Amino acid sequence: MAKSPPETGFFQTRQQVWEHYQHPLQQVEDRISKTLDSQGHLIANIGKYILNGGGKRIRPLLAIIASNLDGERNFGEAVILIASAVELIHTTSLLHDDVIDDAVKRRNKDSARIIWGNKASILVGDHLYAQGVSIAESLRDHAINDIFLEACRLMTEGETLQLTYHRNLDFTEEIYFRIIKCKTAALISATCRLSGMVAKMEPEKQEMLAQFGLQLGSAYQIVDDALDYIGNSQIWGKFLGKDLRDGEITLPLLHLLSRCGKEERKKVEEALRTGKVSHKALLQILNLMRQYKSIEYSMNKARESVEAAKVNLCSFPDSIHRQALLYLANYVILRDH
Amino acid sequence: MAKSPPETGFFQTRQQVWEHYQHPLQQVEDRISKTLDSQGHLIANIGKYILNGGGKRIRPLLAIIASNLDGERNFGEAVILIASAVELIHTTSLLHDDVIDDAVKRRNKDSARIIWGNKASILVGDHLYAQGVSIAESLRDHAINDIFLEACRLMTEGETLQLTYHRNLDFTEEIYFRIIKCKTAALISATCRLSGMVAKMEPEKQEMLAQFGLQLGSAYQIVDDALDYIGNSQIWGKFLGKDLRDGEITLPLLHLLSRCGKEERKKVEEALRTGKVSHKALLQILNLMRQYKSIEYSMNKARESVEAAKVNLCSFPDSIHRQALLYLANYVILRDH
Repeated sequence: MAKSPPETGFFQTRQQVWEHYQHPLQQVEDRISKTLDSQGHLIANIGKYILNGGGKRIRPLLAIIASNLDGERNFGEAVILIASAVELIHTTSLLHDDVIDDAVKRRNKDSARIIWGNKASILVGDHLYAQGVSIAESLRDHAINDIFLEACRLMTEGETLQLTYHRNLDFTEEIYFRIIKCKTAALISATCRLSGMVAKMEPEKQEMLAQFGLQLGSAYQIVDDALDYIGNSQIWGKFLGKDLRDGEITLPLLHLLSRCGKEERKKVEEALRTGKVSHKALLQILNLMRQYKSIEYSMNKARESVEAAKVNLCSFPDSIHRQALLYLANYVILRDH
Repeated sequence: MAKSPPETGFFQTRQQVWEHYQHPLQQVEDRISKTLDSQGHLIANIGKYILNGGGKRIRPLLAIIASNLDGERNFGEAVILIASAVELIHTTSLLHDDVIDDAVKRRNKDSARIIWGNKASILVGDHLYAQGVSIAESLRDHAINDIFLEACRLMTEGETLQLTYHRNLDFTEEIYFRIIKCKTAALISATCRLSGMVAKMEPEKQEMLAQFGLQLGSAYQIVDDALDYIGNSQIWGKFLGKDLRDGEITLPLLHLLSRCGKEERKKVEEALRTGKVSHKALLQILNLMRQYKSIEYSMNKARESVEAAKVNLCSFPDSIHRQALLYLANYVILRDH
């Protein structure tokens, strides 16, 4: 396996990375605020509520860092626009996902749909989507639009595919990886590629960034899915075993189903089919996952994906920015501990 | 008031208009089918179900006719793409509106959300939206994207504004006209303008087409709102007084509220606030509307809008196509009788 670039330990904490890029990140905030403030009351209120809900701005941060990777450059307005556009599309998906999942909480706060209702969440989501596409279009570059819109299409394709396999046991790892690639990794990959495009990098380097984003995005989703079975709801704002109750089959469960005995399998299938999972049944399934090392298996897959992501950074010179991306890649795994 | 162009009576029935343009309309169907077929199962199924649900393809038809208005031209691929893109955006709004309104039926058939659920309707709507924008982008014209995306933004702006005034009696005619201009007329206006753009008409003529569409679209929505109080549910697939029950204030009700006595007003306000409208209460309100000529008032507003639309066609030479647009403009009013 190819080696990933050396890590100098320049960044020691998450905060250090975010602080290093706080100026361009603030420009993204300002750009998004400007978009929202020009809109009606309700759009501005909901938009600000969800955008200020504690999201880490991982996509804007990736865009900003990646654009500097090929030698120091001015951040420039273009990358701020890309970062803002991507964050708005991501925000739409959060608003719509909360309606789709009947979510009560998002990051430990009431979800927008609980405060303003499903109608407003759907409509404001649609509006932010159009705003995101419009901001991308303002760069006046058809190649950028193509990449951006492809990611938008893939996101919903992935989510729709996932819906098709709702409570459906004809599910395989191959389908799982296809879903996460579309629903999560495609937008992160596009973010990194677009960043390289506006920084006028060579096509090969743009492709490296796209691959970096694709692997990183996949790892991110795999960890997210594993957290569902180990997460602390206090920290993550998630409820243990929510995916299982919702009938969403993810990697830990797939692994468990492929390893456990016939009787054990029956129990898992029953829980998955009905969505009725008592606390006792959940604990049993979590125990089985421990026994068969299903979480470990998932986290190893995520680690492989992170390593595969990092390798793509070898063709860029070492810099603070490359170190920042390497830190973020590791952080995807670390965030659960 | 400016005079509208003379009408020769070339078209006598709706069918004649549709048949005259059946070839390019079929090309639009083919283009949309091609988009859907390349997608996953669920997207194709839902997309086809709603697109084959008896919609009249008024927007594609307007695009096709308008592109020929300035002297006979080849329809060309570009107008087919515009028509397909606009119809996909419209389809998204239908899918999302049905979720927002908890609609059980659409055009006398089960709504998509009844068959596939809200989740699928939201996601497939999002997907068709991205597909629509992508088709517009495939024309590689930033000016086209600007007009198209502005319409997308206005649609959701209008719908969000409407939501803000849900069951809210601080509602005025001015707000009503702003809402319908955004939520309905903006896309129809953009359709007509874009059609002039791809036909390479002079900017003044593109503007005339945009104004034609804006007035026509407004008339269309005013009639739609009036039908809610006079419509035949057998024909229109609508339930009498649905807007009232849903707390949506539209022109007939606004008119009634501005004319009726204090006691009568109390009844209407009560119905609007609670959404609880017995059959008897509904009949009383319909009677009041008859007494104060509220439907007549609305239909007159629609007629004015249609006449204002037609005037914009004066600067185009007389042709079958201009006659077709004049027929369609009249049809907006006639469809309720």
